[in-house]
Amino acid sequence: MELHQEIKTLAAQLGAILTDKCLWITTAESCTGGGVSYALTDTPGSSAYIDRAFVTYSNQAKQDLLGVNEQTLIEHGAVSEQTVLEMTKGVCTVTNADVAIAVSGIAGPGGGSSEKPVGLVWFCIKIADKHYASKQVFTGNRAEIRSQAIVYALKQVIDKIN
Amino acid sequence: MELHQEIKTLAAQLGAILTDKCLWITTAESCTGGGVSYALTDTPGSSAYIDRAFVTYSNQAKQDLLGVNEQTLIEHGAVSEQTVLEMTKGVCTVTNADVAIAVSGIAGPGGGSSEKPVGLVWFCIKIADKHYASKQVFTGNRAEIRSQAIVYALKQVIDKIN
Repeated sequence: MELHQEIKTLAAQLGAILTDKCLWITTAESCTGGGVSYALTDTPGSSAYIDRAFVTYSNQAKQDLLGVNEQTLIEHGAVSEQTVLEMTKGVCTVTNADVAIAVSGIAGPGGGSSEKPVGLVWFCIKIADKHYASKQVFTGNRAEIRSQAIVYALKQVIDKIN
Repeated sequence: MELHQEIKTLAAQLGAILTDKCLWITTAESCTGGGVSYALTDTPGSSAYIDRAFVTYSNQAKQDLLGVNEQTLIEHGAVSEQTVLEMTKGVCTVTNADVAIAVSGIAGPGGGSSEKPVGLVWFCIKIADKHYASKQVFTGNRAEIRSQAIVYALKQVIDKIN
């Protein structure tokens, strides 16, 4: 499972920034299922900036491990700005990370609706006490959507951290 | 980050078995950094058998999240039969999973020794109350070692579950 060169390059670039700034990163992943942490740990020496990460695939896992409010999930759904915001807050509460990435989306092929189509992915990047939430609608099959989500997440952190 | 066809096929095959047997799976990953959970969630419908997973990259994370004994880590090291055994026990304690995969190894390029060379990876598969620990020494670069570890882990679960 060789990573795409773009992902390897972005992960290495982010790793160098985190090392340089002495920052720890963590992830709270839903639709990417561990792909962002897999990318982050691709770079040799990554133990200097990542020591733990969470895959919270179900709503219950988001509540149990990250403290996401049940009411948030009921009112806004797992794929929403509110949920990814709570995921980053939660993962920083249960870790000592300085930087967090949360990803929640609809990778498909099922699960889409007119309001929330397949390919919709919400992201939140937390750096210190700042939160940057954004959404994208990716096209392609399940693997392509997940892959693009990983690339976007890494790019967002690099962008926001600089 | 398209998965290798072999990994996609194994993940789908394992997913069909887990769905058929109504079993939940979880992972506790060190050197693979989320790659096994990323593979497991590649298959559409995987929310029927995986709902959460852990990346415990450091010793402290193995202790904090999975309850691995500090003494085990001191005496045997993170890459050992005892540690992966405790990782699977721990991850099943903090989840309701029926099946667990733990992976801890030396992906390199640094960190190897004559006793524990780069490429050494310990695995433990827990199915109900049975534990199956095994080790492999993979060759290749960091990405190749991690990729082979994912393949081996999936194959082991399929083999033991049948």
